[in-house]
Amino acid sequence: MTDPGMNKSRNLTLLTDLYQVNMAYAYYQSGTAEKQVVFDVFFRKNPCGNGYTVAAGLEQVVDYIRHFHFDDEDLDYLKDTQGYSANFIEYLRNLSFSGDIDAVPEGTWVFPHEPILRVKAHLIQAQLLETTILTLLNHQSLIATKTARIVEAAGEDPVLEFGLRRAQGPDAGVYGARAAFIGGAAATSNLMAGKCFHIPVRGTHAHSFVQSFDDELSAFRAFAATFPQRTILLVDTYDTLSQGIPNAIRVFREMRKTHGDTFQNFGIRLDSGDLAYLSKSARKMLDEAGFPEAKIAASSDLDEYLIQDLKAQGARIDIWGVGTNLITSSSCPALAGVYKLAARERDGVLAPEIKRSDNPDKINNPGLKKLVRFRNKDTREAILDLIMLEEEPVPTDAFLAFDPVHPWKKKRIEDFEVEPLLKPIFKDGELVYDLPEIDEIRHYAATEKRSFSKEVRRLTNPHIYHVDLSEQLFHLKQQLLEAVRNHSKSN
Amino acid sequence: MTDPGMNKSRNLTLLTDLYQVNMAYAYYQSGTAEKQVVFDVFFRKNPCGNGYTVAAGLEQVVDYIRHFHFDDEDLDYLKDTQGYSANFIEYLRNLSFSGDIDAVPEGTWVFPHEPILRVKAHLIQAQLLETTILTLLNHQSLIATKTARIVEAAGEDPVLEFGLRRAQGPDAGVYGARAAFIGGAAATSNLMAGKCFHIPVRGTHAHSFVQSFDDELSAFRAFAATFPQRTILLVDTYDTLSQGIPNAIRVFREMRKTHGDTFQNFGIRLDSGDLAYLSKSARKMLDEAGFPEAKIAASSDLDEYLIQDLKAQGARIDIWGVGTNLITSSSCPALAGVYKLAARERDGVLAPEIKRSDNPDKINNPGLKKLVRFRNKDTREAILDLIMLEEEPVPTDAFLAFDPVHPWKKKRIEDFEVEPLLKPIFKDGELVYDLPEIDEIRHYAATEKRSFSKEVRRLTNPHIYHVDLSEQLFHLKQQLLEAVRNHSKSN
Repeated sequence: MTDPGMNKSRNLTLLTDLYQVNMAYAYYQSGTAEKQVVFDVFFRKNPCGNGYTVAAGLEQVVDYIRHFHFDDEDLDYLKDTQGYSANFIEYLRNLSFSGDIDAVPEGTWVFPHEPILRVKAHLIQAQLLETTILTLLNHQSLIATKTARIVEAAGEDPVLEFGLRRAQGPDAGVYGARAAFIGGAAATSNLMAGKCFHIPVRGTHAHSFVQSFDDELSAFRAFAATFPQRTILLVDTYDTLSQGIPNAIRVFREMRKTHGDTFQNFGIRLDSGDLAYLSKSARKMLDEAGFPEAKIAASSDLDEYLIQDLKAQGARIDIWGVGTNLITSSSCPALAGVYKLAARERDGVLAPEIKRSDNPDKINNPGLKKLVRFRNKDTREAILDLIMLEEEPVPTDAFLAFDPVHPWKKKRIEDFEVEPLLKPIFKDGELVYDLPEIDEIRHYAATEKRSFSKEVRRLTNPHIYHVDLSEQLFHLKQQLLEAVRNHSKSN
Repeated sequence: MTDPGMNKSRNLTLLTDLYQVNMAYAYYQSGTAEKQVVFDVFFRKNPCGNGYTVAAGLEQVVDYIRHFHFDDEDLDYLKDTQGYSANFIEYLRNLSFSGDIDAVPEGTWVFPHEPILRVKAHLIQAQLLETTILTLLNHQSLIATKTARIVEAAGEDPVLEFGLRRAQGPDAGVYGARAAFIGGAAATSNLMAGKCFHIPVRGTHAHSFVQSFDDELSAFRAFAATFPQRTILLVDTYDTLSQGIPNAIRVFREMRKTHGDTFQNFGIRLDSGDLAYLSKSARKMLDEAGFPEAKIAASSDLDEYLIQDLKAQGARIDIWGVGTNLITSSSCPALAGVYKLAARERDGVLAPEIKRSDNPDKINNPGLKKLVRFRNKDTREAILDLIMLEEEPVPTDAFLAFDPVHPWKKKRIEDFEVEPLLKPIFKDGELVYDLPEIDEIRHYAATEKRSFSKEVRRLTNPHIYHVDLSEQLFHLKQQLLEAVRNHSKSN
């Protein structure tokens, strides 16, 4: 996969559940392996009670699929442990992806039940890709979304991703930092992520730095002398107000004296105690000392709610360093994206498939579908998303959209422009998509944010953005459900 | 790091926070880079309200440290982005680990404030290792502990790790599966983890498999024909009781007819609905059909509490597949292990260091320390852990241990044998530890489990196992705190 710095070409083909390969074998044995199918990736709930999800991870999915192949070691392992036939092992040896994939670009705001990635391929290929695609999209979309919440709470202030040491393994740190940047973080502390993905990296020093000197003042002087261009001093090793800040101010004065006005971009960091009280006191002391430009950074188990609270209490914090709660999305550590069969070849034709469930929320939308977003022509505000069958024409004139659960709820959609959200990524196994740079992705996510109302972006009980089905898809779904029901009864 | 299958030699040196390298640079510039220091890894709270933590991740730490070096690309990146001096870059180029590391073996049950890994090295080296050591130990210890809780709830039944698709990235899936195995899981669904770490792998089929055939019975027949040695059929695609189980029974009968008594190791899997009701009904149907040996596996958002509840309600489930809640440790997705300075060279002598905090729980234990476990001589039951100074003799006769927070609470320790828990891992930069096989680690963790009472293992409000300080360490700590206090006042 794309250089996560740790390793240039990473083959994730075996990063899958055994049952996928078991099914592949059964398809192979039953002669259905090369039937055409369509699978959709979607989720049923935004994470953390949020009103939207920020799609992320596609770049890693693309790299995975481009490099998809079982290497000799993988095949030896499967042969030795699973008892597959020699013919099947040879079939796997020659297997690469030859189908089509469409997906929403990274940074797109997406909603429950929307197809965010669509695979049209041989049954065996589509099945073998399931787990890894889900792992990559679920993780990064989760962290991008959690970060978007934290950034929402921080308003105009920069949020820094500081979570590597609490991440669920190296990838969680590295790809997590990437997703955080997409979700709106200004920078990460993680050098590996910085190097691999060209994300800005920030960092100051730890308590152990202060302790490793005979006193705090010597530590601060040494740090400032080494980093005159970015002297952020951690002031809470001994006592924030009585020692830390006075020592910091003393060093700022010394630096100003020796470096004059070139001494800029300096400040303090608070990492413990009551951040509202301490930041207000610190602001006062810094201002009175003649350093109104000194920044106050804070860290210490922050999340979106604590940031919101601290701001409500008038905390004077300029920069928010967020670790554990961001990098693990602690309030909701998994996005439950799924990968469901939507159509399969029957008698040479691609026929829509539905999976009935006693839980109506678990019934999938059948068929080869597209996803379109309607925006207000003038303001570009998002009005509605519509899930439609691929072959349907997209409305060009005003129309009545209806809620797929309560169809009597209708909404007139007019003065719109239409944006198809699923972009072709692979066509007949060939990559047909230009992967955007990370800055473009982040910029696109920020544009998306501006096109949704504050109500959709609310952290708690957000307004539910409308995602409807086209009339044709709605009717197809009802019809298939009836058919399943009749089939069930007759069995 | 040890082949995580994806990549043979993975250089994690840059997988660190920028501030570590900034501090390294400041040490280098201040001439303190090669002073001796001691850092301890410990945590302050067991995860998920548990009564213990299962240490895991040491093998990956060892691999990381063995391969620790900044490669040319890393150095180019640092040079281009951080403005370090050319001399420092050259210093980093020649840097490898030359210190000592002691640690508890993987699978050891450990407790808050215990040093589970100890680094004695040059200040610059110890600082540069911090983040990665924490990332690796925090993650795997967390997942091993969460799994131990789930296994505790499942009693004698096997627990299978099924979480890859919801893991926080590829590593979280692969190392998570490794940690789950150490914590007591019987197998994983993750082939990559199986291949890299020689963990048993299990898996059946998905709903999409059933849907990809024209009817459920054909799907079941195809699966059984392909896997006569392990026919576990997922019975809830359409209707569990009216279709799924009857179709499964029909296939079991056909298989028994054609394969006779060689048809073994078969059963069903339930993945939705009320697992208590469905499993009891399923058991009855299978028994009545003459298949009392058919196993019932269940999955569907399980965790330790739900398993405990289902068992209390008489659910007839033989095998528990646990996904999201295990692989993310959803109830507590981070173990907050920290890395704190315990001693540093002053005037050529290693002097103990303390970090005062207004929160007494955050004050570290100073000095170069060891950790010993006292066990009942006859039963091998763990009685007490003692944190001691390295140079102290370990008690050989009965003694009075005392609680370090409430020293008037005393406990007479007698008829014991003593087990030093920290083992030498690196000595002068050389690996001196034989890394055990994963089966040995898992076995050792199971032995640990047997040596702690059921009360310590309780899922909710467990009994607090005693971890005390030696008298000498206790007094050293008090003395240093007084000194810090006096120093503060005089400043």
